[in-house]
Amino acid sequence: MINEKIAQAISILNEKQIDAWLIFVRESHSLHDPSLELILGAHCTWQSAFFISANGETIAIVGNLDAAAIRDAGAFKTVIPYTTSIRDELLATFRKIDPKTIAINYSTNNYMADGLTHGMYMVLCDLLQGTDYPNRFISSEAIVSAIRGRKSPAELSHMKTAIRYTQAIFDQVTDYVRVGMTEQEIANFMKGEVEKRGLEVAWDPETCPSVFTGPDTAGAHYGPTSRKTAAGHIMNIDFGVKYNGYCSDMQRTWYFKRSNEKSVPEAVLKAFNTVRDAIEKAAGFLKPGVQGHEVDNVARQYIIDQGFAEYPHGLGHQIGRAAHDGAGTLCPVWERYGNLPFLNVEQGQVYTLEPRVTCEGYGVATIEEEVVVTKDGCEFLSDPQRELYIIE
Amino acid sequence: MINEKIAQAISILNEKQIDAWLIFVRESHSLHDPSLELILGAHCTWQSAFFISANGETIAIVGNLDAAAIRDAGAFKTVIPYTTSIRDELLATFRKIDPKTIAINYSTNNYMADGLTHGMYMVLCDLLQGTDYPNRFISSEAIVSAIRGRKSPAELSHMKTAIRYTQAIFDQVTDYVRVGMTEQEIANFMKGEVEKRGLEVAWDPETCPSVFTGPDTAGAHYGPTSRKTAAGHIMNIDFGVKYNGYCSDMQRTWYFKRSNEKSVPEAVLKAFNTVRDAIEKAAGFLKPGVQGHEVDNVARQYIIDQGFAEYPHGLGHQIGRAAHDGAGTLCPVWERYGNLPFLNVEQGQVYTLEPRVTCEGYGVATIEEEVVVTKDGCEFLSDPQRELYIIE
Repeated sequence: MINEKIAQAISILNEKQIDAWLIFVRESHSLHDPSLELILGAHCTWQSAFFISANGETIAIVGNLDAAAIRDAGAFKTVIPYTTSIRDELLATFRKIDPKTIAINYSTNNYMADGLTHGMYMVLCDLLQGTDYPNRFISSEAIVSAIRGRKSPAELSHMKTAIRYTQAIFDQVTDYVRVGMTEQEIANFMKGEVEKRGLEVAWDPETCPSVFTGPDTAGAHYGPTSRKTAAGHIMNIDFGVKYNGYCSDMQRTWYFKRSNEKSVPEAVLKAFNTVRDAIEKAAGFLKPGVQGHEVDNVARQYIIDQGFAEYPHGLGHQIGRAAHDGAGTLCPVWERYGNLPFLNVEQGQVYTLEPRVTCEGYGVATIEEEVVVTKDGCEFLSDPQRELYIIE
Repeated sequence: MINEKIAQAISILNEKQIDAWLIFVRESHSLHDPSLELILGAHCTWQSAFFISANGETIAIVGNLDAAAIRDAGAFKTVIPYTTSIRDELLATFRKIDPKTIAINYSTNNYMADGLTHGMYMVLCDLLQGTDYPNRFISSEAIVSAIRGRKSPAELSHMKTAIRYTQAIFDQVTDYVRVGMTEQEIANFMKGEVEKRGLEVAWDPETCPSVFTGPDTAGAHYGPTSRKTAAGHIMNIDFGVKYNGYCSDMQRTWYFKRSNEKSVPEAVLKAFNTVRDAIEKAAGFLKPGVQGHEVDNVARQYIIDQGFAEYPHGLGHQIGRAAHDGAGTLCPVWERYGNLPFLNVEQGQVYTLEPRVTCEGYGVATIEEEVVVTKDGCEFLSDPQRELYIIE
């Protein structure tokens, strides 16, 4: 997989006419540039420079203690160890490649492309003092976004498997849950099922799965509590697993029917159906070349038109090795998102679609599906939830 | 523990006459500023600002979805959620605190104090454009170094427990190993013992434990291989565990006696004893007020005087919540260490002491002990290895 990603990086450098990509890092156990797992597959302790050039060179300059492991990881053809300072080898490598433009590992917009710390940026500029190279720096966000975004068939296959496991565990939840169980009980049951299958959860186990029941929950990004499910509650769960290094991220919604209810209350049905249909409409619009904010707006406007408040977040994010995989996002034009809403959707990207609607007095209806962008549209990777799950 | 650390931070701000400390981060699941686990104990997704002021204010400005979890974590008294942009609340908070100096989370020297990415630094400067605040920025490395370095009694107690577990497992290795076992077999045995005790290893399981046997090993920072122990081999192991969030990091050395050897070869003994005595001499010198490079030099010069090559790394590093805990280091004046060798040793810091000597034809002799700096010297937290462990 790593050699595949390095080949992809070289081809993207040529496509974008960038001479070289430099990842400059240290102590990767403490602060890990997410690109390292794509192109290195090892750790480094001292200041380390990883160059990939448009003409196919791969050069690593690393501390002497790290050199053997990085050499044997096999991703970089040239591994240069140093002991007291990286300066001489770094300068020699810059002079050898002599890049007119060099992409380095920072980004104001894409957090997955922003592994260069400010301290290390200062160190890098200091090491190159007196040369013209700092003037040739550009952000490597376009490279990282393309490498993470464009999924290979092998990557898609892992992601589909992760989704199948996720759906199987959601189905078990439907059989398992009863009125009076706590959110924690339900989350623990799901974690047990993850463990039985030898998998791990897709993000922090404190909030994966997240279980929310009833009208008084935190709403999102909150761990399961001792709150009990009750008749008349909407329950939603946010959950994903990691399979062979690739994540799923999905949400499903249940309703606990009251004993005197013949059918699900109209308000609950309307909330659920609005979320479901907003996803359907956004998926119908999603295709290469459109911008993220346009896709978000399709779902957002539909929800507003049905008389609900708009969701206080984006419609969806990319997913891959990380549940939140960075780069182009289906989100509104809010300052906090930087340029992410303006990036063009590309074939091979995988997005979540996850609008939400609050149903006063009952809880929050959410569905999160995953879609892959095709040549002229998108395909669902998950089996979309078409009907509310009802617990009698 | 988090409230203790926040109180410590406020007292350090006053001691160092800094008006406020700002940690500016986003998507902490992908790139986690190590300070967050000290002062927050939760994750954040969108751009987030955590202020601690010298007069005791604690203010968090976070994305709306993260606000409930961060409020309930209880560390920050004021939690301000935002939806579309952090700008207005950030500016209002800067104006309210109006710091003359504000320490922000970057450092050229201390990697544990360098969680601000360069992209986020640019975002921060952009958000504060037109104000004087960026001119008041200083690095928060002095704050982070003091908070991580000065251990409380509770922290020391956890670290001692981690050391006791580590030593117990080393003792089991001495009983377990036989000629002909692979490095991987020995490492797996140790991992099993870690798991039995409900602990986790102190760093990346790929290289914790590291097991090196014989004269042809990678030397350091390399995972256990299928290489087999043999009579006439020196074996060394680098290993640590995490207990209640606190790490140990220790090394021990064994010798596999040949059947025709009455005693351990002189060369092997000399190598081991040189490492042992170098540690003893450095510990005798270590006390508050000395600088790291002076301590390193005591051990380094002793080893050179015994006719061995100097070790290609520092004598020791601080340890705490991370095995490599950053800040003042017992290391030579090499450019790659920045200012770390020049920092004064302080009471309450815990250092490793880990020189190494290569014994030609046999392997590498290493010992790694842990010491805590006292009022006028230091005390061993580990029971030092005084004698080479011999496998008959």
